[in-house]
Amino acid sequence: MDDETTTPVTVIGLGLMGQALAGAFLKAGHPTTVWNRTAGKADRLVAGGARSVPTVGEAIGPGHLTVICLTDYRAVHEVLGASDVELSGTTLINLSSGDSGQARETARWAQARGARYLDGAVMAIPSAIGTPDAVILQSGARPDFDAHEPALGALGTVTYLGADHGLASLYDAAGLTMMWSVLNAWLQGTALLRTAGVDAGTYAPFARHIAAGVADWLPGYAEQIDRGSFPAEVSTLETDARAMAHLIEESEAVGVNAELPRLIKAMADRAIAAGHGKEQYPVLIEEFGRPGAR
Amino acid sequence: MDDETTTPVTVIGLGLMGQALAGAFLKAGHPTTVWNRTAGKADRLVAGGARSVPTVGEAIGPGHLTVICLTDYRAVHEVLGASDVELSGTTLINLSSGDSGQARETARWAQARGARYLDGAVMAIPSAIGTPDAVILQSGARPDFDAHEPALGALGTVTYLGADHGLASLYDAAGLTMMWSVLNAWLQGTALLRTAGVDAGTYAPFARHIAAGVADWLPGYAEQIDRGSFPAEVSTLETDARAMAHLIEESEAVGVNAELPRLIKAMADRAIAAGHGKEQYPVLIEEFGRPGAR
Repeated sequence: MDDETTTPVTVIGLGLMGQALAGAFLKAGHPTTVWNRTAGKADRLVAGGARSVPTVGEAIGPGHLTVICLTDYRAVHEVLGASDVELSGTTLINLSSGDSGQARETARWAQARGARYLDGAVMAIPSAIGTPDAVILQSGARPDFDAHEPALGALGTVTYLGADHGLASLYDAAGLTMMWSVLNAWLQGTALLRTAGVDAGTYAPFARHIAAGVADWLPGYAEQIDRGSFPAEVSTLETDARAMAHLIEESEAVGVNAELPRLIKAMADRAIAAGHGKEQYPVLIEEFGRPGAR
Repeated sequence: MDDETTTPVTVIGLGLMGQALAGAFLKAGHPTTVWNRTAGKADRLVAGGARSVPTVGEAIGPGHLTVICLTDYRAVHEVLGASDVELSGTTLINLSSGDSGQARETARWAQARGARYLDGAVMAIPSAIGTPDAVILQSGARPDFDAHEPALGALGTVTYLGADHGLASLYDAAGLTMMWSVLNAWLQGTALLRTAGVDAGTYAPFARHIAAGVADWLPGYAEQIDRGSFPAEVSTLETDARAMAHLIEESEAVGVNAELPRLIKAMADRAIAAGHGKEQYPVLIEEFGRPGAR
Protein backbone atom coordinates (compact mmCIF):
# COMPACT_ATOMS: atom_id res chain seq x y z
CA MET A 1 0.00 0.00 0.00
CA ASP A 2 1.33 3.39 -0.91
CA ASP A 3 0.65 6.48 1.07
CA GLU A 4 -2.36 8.19 -0.42
CA THR A 5 -0.60 11.46 -1.21
CA THR A 6 3.15 10.93 -1.41
CA THR A 7 3.68 8.15 -3.97
CA PRO A 8 5.77 9.61 -6.78
CA VAL A 9 3.83 9.39 -10.02
CA THR A 10 4.88 9.83 -13.63
CA VAL A 11 2.61 10.68 -16.53
CA ILE A 12 3.85 9.77 -20.01
CA GLY A 13 1.97 11.55 -22.80
CA LEU A 14 0.47 15.01 -22.34
CA GLY A 15 -2.44 15.22 -24.73
CA LEU A 16 -5.61 16.74 -23.23
CA MET A 17 -6.25 13.57 -21.21
CA GLY A 18 -2.65 13.18 -20.04
CA GLN A 19 -2.55 16.80 -18.89
CA ALA A 20 -5.79 16.30 -16.97
CA LEU A 21 -4.43 13.16 -15.29
CA ALA A 22 -1.17 14.87 -14.27
CA GLY A 23 -3.11 17.89 -13.03
CA ALA A 24 -5.29 15.67 -10.82
CA PHE A 25 -2.22 13.94 -9.31
CA LEU A 26 -0.63 17.32 -8.57
CA LYS A 27 -3.82 18.60 -6.99
CA ALA A 28 -3.87 15.53 -4.71
CA GLY A 29 -0.31 16.29 -3.56
CA HIS A 30 1.67 13.62 -5.43
CA PRO A 31 5.23 14.46 -6.54
CA THR A 32 4.51 14.34 -10.29
CA THR A 33 6.98 13.85 -13.14
CA VAL A 34 5.82 14.38 -16.71
CA TRP A 35 7.18 13.61 -20.14
CA ASN A 36 5.91 14.40 -23.62
CA ARG A 37 7.57 14.07 -27.02
CA THR A 38 7.12 17.83 -27.53
CA ALA A 39 8.07 19.40 -24.21
CA GLY A 40 5.93 22.56 -24.53
CA LYS A 41 2.83 20.67 -23.44
CA ALA A 42 4.31 20.39 -19.94
CA ASP A 43 4.55 24.15 -19.33
CA ARG A 44 1.28 24.62 -17.49
CA LEU A 45 1.91 21.52 -15.35
CA VAL A 46 5.44 22.66 -14.48
CA ALA A 47 3.99 26.00 -13.38
CA GLY A 48 1.71 23.95 -11.11
CA GLY A 49 4.61 22.07 -9.53
CA ALA A 50 5.34 19.17 -11.89
CA ARG A 51 8.85 18.09 -12.83
CA SER A 52 9.35 17.83 -16.59
CA VAL A 53 12.20 15.62 -17.83
CA PRO A 54 13.71 15.41 -21.32
CA THR A 55 13.83 11.60 -21.62
CA VAL A 56 11.47 8.74 -20.73
CA GLY A 57 14.43 7.01 -19.06
CA GLU A 58 14.59 9.81 -16.49
CA ALA A 59 10.81 9.81 -16.00
CA ILE A 60 10.45 6.15 -15.05
CA GLY A 61 12.09 4.60 -12.03
CA PRO A 62 11.67 1.72 -9.57
CA GLY A 63 8.90 2.35 -7.07
CA HIS A 64 7.30 4.89 -9.36
CA LEU A 65 3.73 4.61 -10.49
CA THR A 66 3.83 5.41 -14.20
CA VAL A 67 0.62 6.29 -16.02
CA ILE A 68 0.81 6.06 -19.81
CA CYS A 69 -1.60 8.01 -21.96
CA LEU A 70 -0.41 7.84 -25.57
CA THR A 71 -2.26 7.71 -28.89
CA ASP A 72 -2.07 3.95 -29.37
CA TYR A 73 -0.18 0.80 -28.38
CA ARG A 74 2.37 1.24 -31.16
CA ALA A 75 3.41 4.50 -29.50
CA VAL A 76 3.54 2.74 -26.12
CA HIS A 77 5.99 0.14 -27.41
CA GLU A 78 8.06 2.78 -29.17
CA VAL A 79 8.32 5.07 -26.15
CA LEU A 80 8.85 2.40 -23.47
CA GLY A 81 11.09 0.28 -25.66
CA ALA A 82 13.81 2.95 -25.91
CA SER A 83 17.23 1.62 -24.87
CA ASP A 84 17.61 3.97 -21.87
CA VAL A 85 14.30 2.95 -20.27
CA GLU A 86 14.58 0.60 -17.29
CA LEU A 87 11.19 -0.97 -16.54
CA SER A 88 12.32 -3.35 -13.81
CA GLY A 89 10.62 -2.64 -10.48
CA THR A 90 8.21 -0.03 -11.82
CA THR A 91 4.44 -0.23 -12.11
CA LEU A 92 2.93 0.73 -15.46
CA ILE A 93 -0.71 1.75 -15.81
CA ASN A 94 -1.53 1.97 -19.48
CA LEU A 95 -4.56 4.11 -20.31
CA SER A 96 -3.82 4.41 -24.04
CA SER A 97 -6.55 3.40 -26.53
CA GLY A 98 -6.38 -0.10 -27.91
CA ASP A 99 -8.11 -3.45 -28.01
CA SER A 100 -8.08 -6.35 -25.57
CA GLY A 101 -5.53 -8.32 -27.60
CA GLN A 102 -3.06 -5.44 -27.56
CA ALA A 103 -3.56 -5.02 -23.82
CA ARG A 104 -2.75 -8.68 -23.14
CA GLU A 105 0.27 -8.62 -25.44
CA THR A 106 1.64 -5.43 -23.87
CA ALA A 107 1.17 -6.91 -20.41
CA ARG A 108 3.34 -9.90 -21.38
CA TRP A 109 5.93 -7.57 -22.95
CA ALA A 110 6.14 -5.35 -19.85
CA GLN A 111 6.19 -8.22 -17.38
CA ALA A 112 9.04 -9.87 -19.31
CA ARG A 113 10.99 -6.67 -18.62
CA GLY A 114 10.31 -6.83 -14.89
CA ALA A 115 7.48 -4.31 -14.70
CA ARG A 116 4.14 -4.70 -12.98
CA TYR A 117 1.44 -3.88 -15.53
CA LEU A 118 -2.19 -2.78 -15.30
CA ASP A 119 -4.26 -1.96 -18.34
CA GLY A 120 -7.01 0.60 -18.06
CA ALA A 121 -9.55 2.78 -19.80
CA VAL A 122 -10.84 6.22 -18.90
CA MET A 123 -14.58 6.61 -19.33
CA ALA A 124 -14.68 10.38 -19.05
CA ILE A 125 -13.81 13.58 -20.82
CA PRO A 126 -10.64 15.38 -19.66
CA SER A 127 -12.56 18.06 -17.75
CA ALA A 128 -14.19 15.39 -15.54
CA ILE A 129 -10.86 13.90 -14.40
CA GLY A 130 -10.42 14.32 -10.65
CA THR A 131 -14.17 14.14 -9.99
CA PRO A 132 -16.24 11.06 -9.06
CA ASP A 133 -17.87 11.26 -12.54
CA ALA A 134 -14.65 10.05 -14.16
CA VAL A 135 -14.75 6.25 -14.24
CA ILE A 136 -11.29 4.65 -14.46
CA LEU A 137 -11.42 0.97 -15.39
CA GLN A 138 -8.48 -1.22 -14.36
CA SER A 139 -7.53 -4.80 -15.21
CA GLY A 140 -4.49 -6.86 -14.22
CA ALA A 141 -3.14 -8.62 -11.13
CA ARG A 142 -5.15 -7.74 -8.03
CA PRO A 143 -2.12 -7.07 -5.76
CA ASP A 144 -0.71 -4.57 -8.30
CA PHE A 145 -4.05 -2.79 -8.34
CA ASP A 146 -4.44 -2.83 -4.55
CA ALA A 147 -0.95 -1.34 -4.11
CA HIS A 148 -1.87 1.73 -6.14
CA GLU A 149 -5.61 2.13 -5.68
CA PRO A 150 -5.23 5.06 -3.25
CA ALA A 151 -3.09 7.05 -5.72
CA LEU A 152 -5.45 6.24 -8.61
CA GLY A 153 -8.33 7.52 -6.51
CA ALA A 154 -7.08 11.05 -7.26
CA LEU A 155 -8.29 10.55 -10.86
CA GLY A 156 -11.90 9.59 -10.27
CA THR A 157 -13.98 6.52 -9.47
CA VAL A 158 -11.64 3.57 -9.93
CA THR A 159 -13.16 0.18 -10.79
CA TYR A 160 -11.17 -3.07 -10.73
CA LEU A 161 -12.45 -5.58 -13.29
CA GLY A 162 -10.25 -8.66 -12.95
CA ALA A 163 -6.88 -10.24 -13.63
CA ASP A 164 -7.29 -10.53 -17.44
CA HIS A 165 -5.50 -7.46 -18.83
CA GLY A 166 -7.98 -7.35 -21.75
CA LEU A 167 -11.00 -6.60 -19.55
CA ALA A 168 -10.65 -2.81 -19.37
CA SER A 169 -10.66 -2.52 -23.16
CA LEU A 170 -13.66 -4.85 -23.50
CA TYR A 171 -15.70 -3.03 -20.84
CA ASP A 172 -14.77 0.28 -22.47
CA ALA A 173 -15.96 -0.93 -25.89
CA ALA A 174 -19.15 -2.29 -24.36
CA GLY A 175 -19.82 0.98 -22.54
CA LEU A 176 -19.23 3.09 -25.64
CA THR A 177 -21.58 0.85 -27.63
CA MET A 178 -24.26 1.50 -25.00
CA MET A 179 -23.57 5.22 -25.03
CA TRP A 180 -23.90 5.64 -28.78
CA SER A 181 -26.86 3.26 -28.94
CA VAL A 182 -28.86 5.28 -26.42
CA LEU A 183 -27.94 8.48 -28.26
CA ASN A 184 -28.85 7.01 -31.66
CA ALA A 185 -32.18 5.66 -30.45
CA TRP A 186 -32.93 9.08 -28.97
CA LEU A 187 -31.99 10.76 -32.28
CA GLN A 188 -34.20 8.33 -34.21
CA GLY A 189 -37.13 9.11 -31.91
CA THR A 190 -36.43 12.84 -32.04
CA ALA A 191 -36.41 12.67 -35.85
CA LEU A 192 -39.75 10.79 -35.85
CA LEU A 193 -41.40 13.27 -33.47
CA ARG A 194 -40.08 16.31 -35.31
CA THR A 195 -42.12 15.25 -38.35
CA ALA A 196 -45.17 16.02 -36.20
CA GLY A 197 -43.77 19.34 -34.96
CA VAL A 198 -42.68 18.03 -31.53
CA ASP A 199 -39.42 19.65 -30.48
CA ALA A 200 -36.45 17.74 -29.07
CA GLY A 201 -36.90 19.22 -25.60
CA THR A 202 -40.47 17.93 -25.39
CA TYR A 203 -39.50 14.41 -26.42
CA ALA A 204 -36.25 14.04 -24.41
CA PRO A 205 -37.81 13.30 -20.97
CA PHE A 206 -39.86 10.49 -22.53
CA ALA A 207 -36.73 8.98 -24.12
CA ARG A 208 -34.86 9.30 -20.84
CA HIS A 209 -37.64 7.53 -18.95
CA ILE A 210 -37.75 4.61 -21.40
CA ALA A 211 -33.95 4.19 -21.49
CA ALA A 212 -33.65 4.18 -17.71
CA GLY A 213 -36.62 1.81 -17.41
CA VAL A 214 -35.19 -0.71 -19.87
CA ALA A 215 -31.78 -0.46 -18.16
CA ASP A 216 -33.47 -1.78 -15.03
CA TRP A 217 -34.45 -4.99 -16.85
CA LEU A 218 -30.87 -5.93 -17.75
CA PRO A 219 -29.86 -7.82 -14.59
CA GLY A 220 -32.99 -10.00 -14.88
CA TYR A 221 -32.47 -10.61 -18.60
CA ALA A 222 -28.83 -11.49 -17.88
CA GLU A 223 -30.04 -14.43 -15.78
CA GLN A 224 -31.67 -15.91 -18.89
CA ILE A 225 -28.36 -15.69 -20.74
CA ASP A 226 -26.36 -17.26 -17.92
CA ARG A 227 -28.93 -20.07 -17.63
CA GLY A 228 -29.01 -20.47 -21.43
CA SER A 229 -32.79 -20.65 -21.25
CA PHE A 230 -35.11 -18.05 -22.79
CA PRO A 231 -38.76 -18.69 -21.94
CA ALA A 232 -41.08 -15.99 -23.35
CA GLU A 233 -42.22 -14.53 -20.03
CA VAL A 234 -42.82 -11.08 -21.53
CA SER A 235 -43.23 -11.59 -25.27
CA THR A 236 -42.00 -13.83 -28.06
CA LEU A 237 -39.50 -12.75 -30.70
CA GLU A 238 -42.20 -13.34 -33.32
CA THR A 239 -44.45 -10.78 -31.63
CA ASP A 240 -41.51 -8.38 -31.31
CA ALA A 241 -40.69 -8.75 -35.01
CA ARG A 242 -44.18 -7.59 -36.00
CA ALA A 243 -43.73 -4.40 -33.95
CA MET A 244 -40.26 -3.95 -35.51
CA ALA A 245 -41.86 -4.03 -38.96
CA HIS A 246 -44.07 -1.13 -37.79
CA LEU A 247 -40.94 0.84 -36.81
CA ILE A 248 -39.56 0.50 -40.30
CA GLU A 249 -42.90 1.37 -41.92
CA GLU A 250 -43.38 4.42 -39.69
CA SER A 251 -39.84 5.69 -40.33
CA GLU A 252 -40.21 5.26 -44.09
CA ALA A 253 -43.70 6.76 -44.15
CA VAL A 254 -42.59 10.00 -42.46
CA GLY A 255 -39.31 10.17 -44.39
CA VAL A 256 -36.72 9.67 -41.65
CA ASN A 257 -33.73 7.32 -41.68
CA ALA A 258 -34.75 3.66 -41.26
CA GLU A 259 -31.34 1.97 -40.96
CA LEU A 260 -31.47 1.55 -37.18
CA PRO A 261 -34.99 0.00 -37.24
CA ARG A 262 -33.87 -2.24 -40.11
CA LEU A 263 -30.82 -3.47 -38.17
CA ILE A 264 -33.02 -4.15 -35.13
CA LYS A 265 -35.37 -6.28 -37.26
CA ALA A 266 -32.57 -8.01 -39.18
CA MET A 267 -31.01 -9.32 -35.95
CA ALA A 268 -34.38 -10.58 -34.68
CA ASP A 269 -35.28 -12.13 -38.04
CA ARG A 270 -32.04 -14.12 -38.02
CA ALA A 271 -32.80 -15.51 -34.56
CA ILE A 272 -36.31 -16.41 -35.71
CA ALA A 273 -34.88 -18.12 -38.81
CA ALA A 274 -32.59 -20.06 -36.46
CA GLY A 275 -35.71 -21.41 -34.71
CA HIS A 276 -36.01 -19.03 -31.74
CA GLY A 277 -39.30 -17.30 -32.68
CA LYS A 278 -41.14 -18.55 -29.60
CA GLU A 279 -38.37 -17.51 -27.21
CA GLN A 280 -37.60 -14.21 -25.52
CA TYR A 281 -35.39 -11.35 -26.67
CA PRO A 282 -32.13 -12.22 -24.84
CA VAL A 283 -31.85 -15.33 -27.05
CA LEU A 284 -30.38 -12.88 -29.57
CA ILE A 285 -27.10 -13.24 -27.66
CA GLU A 286 -26.40 -16.10 -30.08
CA GLU A 287 -26.56 -13.67 -33.04
CA PHE A 288 -24.54 -10.97 -31.30
CA GLY A 289 -21.96 -13.56 -30.27
CA ARG A 290 -20.90 -14.53 -33.78
CA PRO A 291 -19.67 -12.65 -36.85
CA GLY A 292 -22.61 -11.49 -38.98
CA ALA A 293 -23.19 -9.83 -42.34
CA ARG A 294 -20.59 -7.27 -43.40
CA MET B 1 -66.22 14.44 -16.89
CA ASP B 2 -67.45 10.93 -16.32
CA ASP B 3 -67.83 9.36 -12.96
CA GLU B 4 -64.68 7.45 -12.25
CA THR B 5 -66.33 4.08 -11.83
CA THR B 6 -69.70 4.05 -13.54
CA THR B 7 -69.06 5.09 -17.16
CA PRO B 8 -70.17 2.20 -19.35
CA VAL B 9 -67.22 0.96 -21.37
CA THR B 10 -66.99 -1.33 -24.35
CA VAL B 11 -63.96 -3.30 -25.43
CA ILE B 12 -63.82 -4.41 -29.08
CA GLY B 13 -61.28 -7.15 -29.74
CA LEU B 14 -60.37 -9.73 -27.12
CA GLY B 15 -56.84 -10.82 -27.89
CA LEU B 16 -54.54 -11.06 -24.86
CA MET B 17 -54.34 -7.27 -24.62
CA GLY B 18 -58.08 -6.70 -25.14
CA GLN B 19 -58.89 -9.23 -22.44
CA ALA B 20 -56.48 -7.51 -20.05
CA LEU B 21 -58.05 -4.10 -20.78
CA ALA B 22 -61.60 -5.38 -20.23
CA GLY B 23 -60.49 -7.15 -17.05
CA ALA B 24 -59.02 -3.91 -15.66
CA PHE B 25 -62.24 -1.98 -16.41
CA LEU B 26 -64.31 -4.66 -14.67
CA LYS B 27 -62.01 -4.64 -11.67
CA ALA B 28 -62.43 -0.85 -11.40
CA GLY B 29 -66.22 -1.28 -11.33
CA HIS B 30 -67.19 -0.14 -14.84
CA PRO B 31 -70.20 -1.78 -16.52
CA THR B 32 -68.24 -3.47 -19.30
CA THR B 33 -69.49 -4.74 -22.65
CA VAL B 34 -67.23 -6.89 -24.80
CA TRP B 35 -67.24 -8.09 -28.38
CA ASN B 36 -64.96 -10.39 -30.28
CA ARG B 37 -65.32 -12.00 -33.71
CA THR B 38 -65.07 -15.42 -32.08
CA ALA B 39 -67.22 -15.18 -28.97
CA GLY B 40 -65.43 -17.85 -26.89
CA LYS B 41 -62.71 -15.39 -25.91
CA ALA B 42 -65.30 -13.52 -23.80
CA ASP B 43 -66.07 -16.45 -21.51
CA ARG B 44 -63.71 -15.61 -18.68
CA LEU B 45 -64.74 -11.93 -18.77
CA VAL B 46 -68.46 -12.83 -18.72
CA ALA B 47 -67.79 -14.98 -15.66
CA GLY B 48 -66.25 -11.85 -14.13
CA GLY B 49 -69.33 -9.72 -14.82
CA ALA B 50 -68.90 -8.51 -18.40
CA ARG B 51 -71.77 -8.41 -20.89
CA SER B 52 -70.91 -10.13 -24.17
CA VAL B 53 -72.93 -9.15 -27.25
CA PRO B 54 -73.13 -10.88 -30.64
CA THR B 55 -72.75 -7.77 -32.85
CA VAL B 56 -70.61 -4.65 -32.77
CA GLY B 57 -73.77 -2.61 -33.34
CA GLU B 58 -75.10 -3.72 -29.96
CA ALA B 59 -71.73 -3.10 -28.26
CA ILE B 60 -71.36 0.56 -29.23
CA GLY B 61 -73.79 3.25 -28.20
CA PRO B 62 -73.98 7.00 -27.58
CA GLY B 63 -72.31 8.00 -24.32
CA HIS B 64 -70.26 4.82 -24.31
CA LEU B 65 -66.52 4.84 -24.11
CA THR B 66 -65.39 2.28 -26.68
CA VAL B 67 -61.86 0.93 -26.57
CA ILE B 68 -60.73 -0.81 -29.75
CA CYS B 69 -57.90 -3.33 -29.64
CA LEU B 70 -57.77 -5.12 -33.01
CA THR B 71 -54.86 -6.50 -35.06
CA ASP B 72 -54.52 -3.52 -37.37
CA TYR B 73 -56.34 -0.50 -38.84
CA ARG B 74 -57.80 -2.53 -41.70
CA ALA B 75 -59.63 -4.60 -39.10
CA VAL B 76 -60.77 -1.40 -37.36
CA HIS B 77 -62.37 -0.06 -40.54
CA GLU B 78 -63.95 -3.42 -41.31
CA VAL B 79 -65.45 -3.89 -37.85
CA LEU B 80 -66.61 -0.30 -37.24
CA GLY B 81 -67.75 0.20 -40.83
CA ALA B 82 -70.45 -2.51 -40.62
CA SER B 83 -73.87 -1.20 -41.63
CA ASP B 84 -75.50 -1.74 -38.21
CA VAL B 85 -72.86 0.28 -36.32
CA GLU B 86 -73.93 3.78 -35.25
CA LEU B 87 -70.86 5.84 -34.29
CA SER B 88 -72.64 9.14 -33.74
CA GLY B 89 -72.24 10.40 -30.15
CA THR B 90 -69.81 7.71 -29.06
CA THR B 91 -66.17 8.10 -28.09
CA LEU B 92 -63.70 5.73 -29.72
CA ILE B 93 -60.27 5.06 -28.24
CA ASN B 94 -58.26 3.09 -30.76
CA LEU B 95 -55.32 1.14 -29.28
CA SER B 96 -54.77 -1.07 -32.35
CA SER B 97 -51.26 -1.16 -33.88
CA GLY B 98 -50.60 1.14 -36.81
CA ASP B 99 -48.64 4.12 -37.98
CA SER B 100 -49.24 7.84 -37.52
CA GLY B 101 -50.73 8.25 -41.00
CA GLN B 102 -53.32 5.54 -40.37
CA ALA B 103 -54.19 7.13 -37.03
CA ARG B 104 -54.83 10.53 -38.60
CA GLU B 105 -56.88 9.01 -41.43
CA THR B 106 -58.98 6.92 -39.05
CA ALA B 107 -59.60 9.99 -36.90
CA ARG B 108 -61.01 11.84 -39.92
CA TRP B 109 -63.10 8.81 -40.87
CA ALA B 110 -64.58 8.41 -37.39
CA GLN B 111 -65.21 12.14 -36.89
CA ALA B 112 -67.04 12.30 -40.24
CA ARG B 113 -69.42 9.69 -38.75
CA GLY B 114 -70.07 11.79 -35.64
CA ALA B 115 -67.71 10.00 -33.23
CA ARG B 116 -65.15 11.53 -30.93
CA TYR B 117 -61.82 9.81 -31.59
CA LEU B 118 -58.62 9.35 -29.62
CA ASP B 119 -55.72 7.32 -30.90
CA GLY B 120 -53.49 5.54 -28.45
CA ALA B 121 -50.73 3.04 -27.83
CA VAL B 122 -50.16 0.67 -24.95
CA MET B 123 -46.53 0.50 -23.80
CA ALA B 124 -46.92 -2.58 -21.64
CA ILE B 125 -47.42 -6.30 -21.73
CA PRO B 126 -50.94 -7.59 -20.98
CA SER B 127 -50.05 -8.74 -17.46
CA ALA B 128 -49.05 -5.16 -16.50
CA ILE B 129 -52.43 -3.65 -17.49
CA GLY B 130 -54.17 -2.15 -14.47
CA THR B 131 -50.88 -1.31 -12.74
CA PRO B 132 -48.96 2.01 -12.85
CA ASP B 133 -46.26 0.26 -14.94
CA ALA B 134 -48.58 0.17 -17.94
CA VAL B 135 -48.12 3.39 -19.89
CA ILE B 136 -51.11 4.30 -22.07
CA LEU B 137 -50.32 7.01 -24.62
CA GLN B 138 -53.22 9.13 -25.91
CA SER B 139 -53.48 11.66 -28.72
CA GLY B 140 -56.47 13.63 -30.03
CA ALA B 141 -58.64 16.55 -28.93
CA ARG B 142 -57.91 17.54 -25.35
CA PRO B 143 -61.57 17.81 -24.26
CA ASP B 144 -62.24 14.27 -25.49
CA PHE B 145 -59.28 13.04 -23.47
CA ASP B 146 -60.23 15.02 -20.36
CA ALA B 147 -63.76 13.62 -20.45
CA HIS B 148 -62.51 10.05 -20.20
CA GLU B 149 -59.21 10.32 -18.35
CA PRO B 150 -60.70 8.99 -15.08
CA ALA B 151 -62.01 5.83 -16.76
CA LEU B 152 -58.75 5.29 -18.65
CA GLY B 153 -56.91 5.55 -15.33
CA ALA B 154 -58.14 2.03 -14.58
CA LEU B 155 -55.75 0.75 -17.26
CA GLY B 156 -52.47 2.24 -16.04
CA THR B 157 -50.52 5.49 -16.24
CA VAL B 158 -52.27 7.56 -18.90
CA THR B 159 -50.23 10.18 -20.77
CA TYR B 160 -51.80 12.80 -23.04
CA LEU B 161 -49.46 13.79 -25.90
CA GLY B 162 -51.34 16.40 -27.94
CA ALA B 163 -54.10 17.06 -30.44
CA ASP B 164 -52.38 15.45 -33.45
CA HIS B 165 -53.86 11.93 -33.64
CA GLY B 166 -50.55 10.61 -35.03
CA LEU B 167 -48.56 11.38 -31.88
CA ALA B 168 -49.30 8.18 -29.94
CA SER B 169 -48.02 6.03 -32.78
CA LEU B 170 -44.89 8.17 -33.20
CA TYR B 171 -44.06 8.14 -29.47
CA ASP B 172 -44.68 4.39 -29.41
CA ALA B 173 -42.27 3.83 -32.32
CA ALA B 174 -39.68 6.09 -30.69
CA GLY B 175 -40.01 4.26 -27.36
CA LEU B 176 -39.69 0.84 -28.96
CA THR B 177 -36.59 1.97 -30.84
CA MET B 178 -35.06 3.01 -27.52
CA MET B 179 -36.06 -0.28 -25.89
CA TRP B 180 -34.48 -2.49 -28.54
CA SER B 181 -31.44 -0.24 -28.84
CA VAL B 182 -30.65 -0.52 -25.13
CA LEU B 183 -31.18 -4.27 -25.30
CA ASN B 184 -29.00 -4.64 -28.41
CA ALA B 185 -26.18 -2.54 -26.98
CA TRP B 186 -26.33 -4.66 -23.84
CA LEU B 187 -26.23 -7.86 -25.92
CA GLN B 188 -23.26 -6.52 -27.91
CA GLY B 189 -21.41 -5.75 -24.68
CA THR B 190 -22.38 -9.08 -23.15
CA ALA B 191 -21.07 -10.87 -26.26
CA LEU B 192 -17.77 -8.93 -26.04
CA LEU B 193 -17.30 -9.71 -22.35
CA ARG B 194 -18.20 -13.37 -22.72
CA THR B 195 -15.14 -13.80 -24.96
CA ALA B 196 -13.10 -13.07 -21.80
CA GLY B 197 -15.18 -15.43 -19.64
CA VAL B 198 -17.24 -12.69 -17.96
CA ASP B 199 -20.81 -13.86 -17.45
CA ALA B 200 -23.87 -11.80 -18.33
CA GLY B 201 -24.81 -11.28 -14.69
CA THR B 202 -21.42 -9.72 -13.93
CA TYR B 203 -21.62 -7.31 -16.85
CA ALA B 204 -25.30 -6.29 -16.56
CA PRO B 205 -24.96 -3.77 -13.68
CA PHE B 206 -22.23 -1.94 -15.63
CA ALA B 207 -24.47 -1.75 -18.73
CA ARG B 208 -27.38 -0.55 -16.61
CA HIS B 209 -25.26 2.19 -15.05
CA ILE B 210 -24.03 3.46 -18.43
CA ALA B 211 -27.50 3.40 -20.02
CA ALA B 212 -29.09 5.30 -17.14
CA GLY B 213 -26.20 7.77 -17.06
CA VAL B 214 -26.43 8.55 -20.78
CA ALA B 215 -30.21 8.86 -20.48
CA ASP B 216 -29.61 11.75 -18.09
CA TRP B 217 -27.75 13.67 -20.81
CA LEU B 218 -30.68 13.69 -23.23
CA PRO B 219 -32.52 16.81 -22.03
CA GLY B 220 -29.30 18.83 -22.28
CA TYR B 221 -28.43 17.44 -25.71
CA ALA B 222 -32.00 18.20 -26.84
CA GLU B 223 -31.32 21.90 -26.26
CA GLN B 224 -28.58 21.77 -28.91
CA ILE B 225 -31.05 20.31 -31.40
CA ASP B 226 -33.75 22.88 -30.64
CA ARG B 227 -31.18 25.70 -30.97
CA GLY B 228 -29.74 24.12 -34.13
CA SER B 229 -26.24 24.75 -32.76
CA PHE B 230 -23.82 21.95 -31.87
CA PRO B 231 -20.62 23.29 -30.24
CA ALA B 232 -18.23 20.49 -29.19
CA GLU B 233 -18.46 21.01 -25.43
CA VAL B 234 -17.71 17.36 -24.66
CA SER B 235 -15.98 15.96 -27.76
CA THR B 236 -15.97 16.35 -31.51
CA LEU B 237 -17.48 13.86 -33.94
CA GLU B 238 -14.00 13.28 -35.37
CA THR B 239 -12.72 12.17 -31.97
CA ASP B 240 -15.82 10.00 -31.51
CA ALA B 241 -15.26 8.36 -34.91
CA ARG B 242 -11.78 7.20 -33.90
CA ALA B 243 -13.22 5.47 -30.84
CA MET B 244 -15.96 3.95 -33.04
CA ALA B 245 -13.27 2.43 -35.25
CA HIS B 246 -11.90 0.75 -32.09
CA LEU B 247 -15.35 -0.75 -31.40
CA ILE B 248 -15.39 -2.36 -34.82
CA GLU B 249 -11.81 -3.60 -34.51
CA GLU B 250 -12.42 -5.03 -31.04
CA SER B 251 -15.63 -6.78 -32.15
CA GLU B 252 -13.96 -8.28 -35.20
CA ALA B 253 -10.81 -9.26 -33.26
CA VAL B 254 -12.74 -11.30 -30.69
CA GLY B 255 -15.15 -12.74 -33.27
CA VAL B 256 -18.48 -11.18 -32.25
CA ASN B 257 -21.01 -9.46 -34.50
CA ALA B 258 -19.85 -6.00 -35.65
CA GLU B 259 -22.97 -4.75 -37.46
CA LEU B 260 -24.11 -2.47 -34.62
CA PRO B 261 -20.66 -0.82 -34.24
CA ARG B 262 -20.50 -0.46 -38.03
CA LEU B 263 -23.90 1.28 -38.17
CA ILE B 264 -22.82 3.61 -35.34
CA LYS B 265 -19.69 4.59 -37.29
CA ALA B 266 -21.48 4.84 -40.65
CA MET B 267 -23.92 7.44 -39.29
CA ALA B 268 -21.08 9.49 -37.76
CA ASP B 269 -18.94 9.21 -40.90
CA ARG B 270 -21.77 10.61 -42.99
CA ALA B 271 -22.12 13.63 -40.70
CA ILE B 272 -18.35 14.16 -40.85
CA ALA B 273 -18.46 13.91 -44.66
CA ALA B 274 -21.21 16.56 -44.57
CA GLY B 275 -18.77 18.89 -42.78
CA HIS B 276 -19.76 18.36 -39.12
CA GLY B 277 -16.54 16.74 -37.85
CA LYS B 278 -15.77 19.54 -35.40
CA GLU B 279 -19.29 19.60 -33.96
CA GLN B 280 -20.90 17.53 -31.24
CA TYR B 281 -22.85 14.28 -31.46
CA PRO B 282 -26.44 15.64 -31.58
CA VAL B 283 -25.64 17.16 -34.99
CA LEU B 284 -26.38 13.64 -36.25
CA ILE B 285 -30.07 14.59 -36.05
CA GLU B 286 -29.60 15.75 -39.66
CA GLU B 287 -28.65 12.20 -40.73
CA PHE B 288 -31.42 10.57 -38.68
CA GLY B 289 -33.94 13.04 -40.07
CA ARG B 290 -33.62 12.01 -43.70
CA PRO B 291 -33.88 8.72 -45.61
CA GLY B 292 -30.49 6.96 -45.70
CA ALA B 293 -28.95 3.92 -47.34
CA ARG B 294 -31.26 0.92 -47.79
